[in-house]
Amino acid sequence: MPSQQQSAQPSVPARATEPAAGHGVTLDIHTDVTTLTAAVCDVESVSHDEARLADAIEAALRPLEHLEVLRDGNTLVARTSLGRAERVILAGHIDTVPLTTVPNLPTRQVDGELWGRGTVDMKGGVAVMLRVAAQLREPNRDLTFLFYECEEIEAAHNGLARLAQSAPQLLEGDFAVLLEPTNGGIEGGCKGTLRVEVVTKGIAAHSARPWKGHNAIHDAATVLSRLTAYEAETVSVDGLDYHEALQAVGISGGIAGNVVPDSCTVTVNYRYAPDKDTEQAFAHVRHVFDGFDVSLTDAADGARPGLQLPAAKAFIDALGVPVSPKEGWTDVARFSALGIPAVNYGPGDPNLAHMDDERCPVEQYTEAEAALLRWLA
Amino acid sequence: MPSQQQSAQPSVPARATEPAAGHGVTLDIHTDVTTLTAAVCDVESVSHDEARLADAIEAALRPLEHLEVLRDGNTLVARTSLGRAERVILAGHIDTVPLTTVPNLPTRQVDGELWGRGTVDMKGGVAVMLRVAAQLREPNRDLTFLFYECEEIEAAHNGLARLAQSAPQLLEGDFAVLLEPTNGGIEGGCKGTLRVEVVTKGIAAHSARPWKGHNAIHDAATVLSRLTAYEAETVSVDGLDYHEALQAVGISGGIAGNVVPDSCTVTVNYRYAPDKDTEQAFAHVRHVFDGFDVSLTDAADGARPGLQLPAAKAFIDALGVPVSPKEGWTDVARFSALGIPAVNYGPGDPNLAHMDDERCPVEQYTEAEAALLRWLA
Repeated sequence: MPSQQQSAQPSVPARATEPAAGHGVTLDIHTDVTTLTAAVCDVESVSHDEARLADAIEAALRPLEHLEVLRDGNTLVARTSLGRAERVILAGHIDTVPLTTVPNLPTRQVDGELWGRGTVDMKGGVAVMLRVAAQLREPNRDLTFLFYECEEIEAAHNGLARLAQSAPQLLEGDFAVLLEPTNGGIEGGCKGTLRVEVVTKGIAAHSARPWKGHNAIHDAATVLSRLTAYEAETVSVDGLDYHEALQAVGISGGIAGNVVPDSCTVTVNYRYAPDKDTEQAFAHVRHVFDGFDVSLTDAADGARPGLQLPAAKAFIDALGVPVSPKEGWTDVARFSALGIPAVNYGPGDPNLAHMDDERCPVEQYTEAEAALLRWLA
Repeated sequence: MPSQQQSAQPSVPARATEPAAGHGVTLDIHTDVTTLTAAVCDVESVSHDEARLADAIEAALRPLEHLEVLRDGNTLVARTSLGRAERVILAGHIDTVPLTTVPNLPTRQVDGELWGRGTVDMKGGVAVMLRVAAQLREPNRDLTFLFYECEEIEAAHNGLARLAQSAPQLLEGDFAVLLEPTNGGIEGGCKGTLRVEVVTKGIAAHSARPWKGHNAIHDAATVLSRLTAYEAETVSVDGLDYHEALQAVGISGGIAGNVVPDSCTVTVNYRYAPDKDTEQAFAHVRHVFDGFDVSLTDAADGARPGLQLPAAKAFIDALGVPVSPKEGWTDVARFSALGIPAVNYGPGDPNLAHMDDERCPVEQYTEAEAALLRWLA
């Protein structure tokens, strides 16, 4: 349930003159993690509109003397500097997809589940991070907390990606945990993804006289037949089995209802195991569609899980939860690109992310908080 | 070249008070047919904007005492009533498709060809009709001239279709000639046309986990394969061979770049010989795509050429030009639906209709005029 407490300051006019005070929203990071999750959710923060929540998080972290707090836009970094042998990064995005038409906020708790936008993706993870920050003044590993903006939209706006470019020293570490929802399990690494356009070319003609042209949509029969015949591989990387996939995600063609079409475009998405980079993956797709015009439209490499590394092993041992491969691409790949092994671990069923009925059993929040404290205390 | 003569009335203000006077444009229907074609072309009349040309045609026909002239919107009917044994309809639309970006008007004559919008489709035919109307005061058959609007756009606006509904008695006749461009040959009847949507249904899922869904675009492989394997028939009707055709004219599917699509729609156009009606043709298409969801979106039956009928034989004998089937659907089907056999015959290469370089050898205009005079004088 909502726990948006008013600022301790005396009056609305007084607060209005102090815009740095978090627009009047205060997060109590010393309350229980479920209450805190509800409070974080109830500060709406659809992508590009995270300022109010970033202000509140910043205001909550600043008083913690064991943390150095830095801000870049609506992205926040908070770090200990205890001289520990290892540094762990805990990361989570603070934006959400848009609310439902009948707004699914404020949150409400029903039969042990917290309902509402962000309860899965991923303000439960954000609240767990805030609880760890509040409680562990002397963690056994140095910690870097990373709260970042604009994960749910085009990568050009992603706060983590921007920081990796502009201030990579802030992202130094031995191991990273991205608190995206994994239903309480550990999901290692992630698959890469690329999209290509496979284009067939024909010759336009009147559809009453098709013999004067050549039908590009008919030619796409071969493209689609290769997709239906394609047998995707399962590739083992660092002990996890990644299931590859090659799927048409779009098709378009046609000029008018009486014209033989001169072009047809099939958009194909290849999800590939993290043993390959973009170049190798694109070569594979070109091979599948040999004889056709294939152009790459976008790509993002995956991440190896790095589960054989000491920091990862310690994490897995401390948590004692199942470990599986991450099938979807996530920002763990951004850590992987910086040479930092990374896993996904967070409360919430990822199948409910972005859904109208987004909700999470509250014990997943408390379990995640307890697991991280076990590992880091 | 343009021969737009000014109205005989004395001054612009005087004309402005008489809007029925053709907005100042006068067509001289007693000049040669090429000059007249250029003049008709130079009165722009893109669909829905035919009033100025209809006014000019009406003003040109009204003084001809052997014709009764009727007007409905921008559609004109002019008829003789000489009590002849047969009545022949000469029909042509007065609208054009839009001009090119750098306007292809006014017309210009280069090396024996008249260039510009309408020179092929079909103001040459309109000019031939006007020349026949002007010269044949006592034709050997009663004549009905039909100048109609809005042929180049949706059928709902078509002036001939409207007249066939509202005043079919004006369209009575034994034989009709539609002066659409045929490159000077006779094209009998026309094929029918129908469009269907063949829809495949799948189950949406994240494209990183396609095994949780079912790809509707992949299922369209079978639809396209049936199209590529399809062998269209050639059907002989009234002595002419019609080449049927079954072509995809559009395809669309896809939700987002990371989603297994749950639906794919292939739009298919069937062009069928005039031995079939819509019901038979649709049954054939359903059979081809047996097992798929097939829905009819629009249909228009073709027209039998009726070349065995006496009026048609007389026309062919008088002209002595080649006779072939009309592959594309034309308004001859509207006459056919009224029980009137009809053929297409007119100046201009139909492949140049609607093209940026629309143009016609001027001798095709004079030949068409001479041929009709031979038949009807």
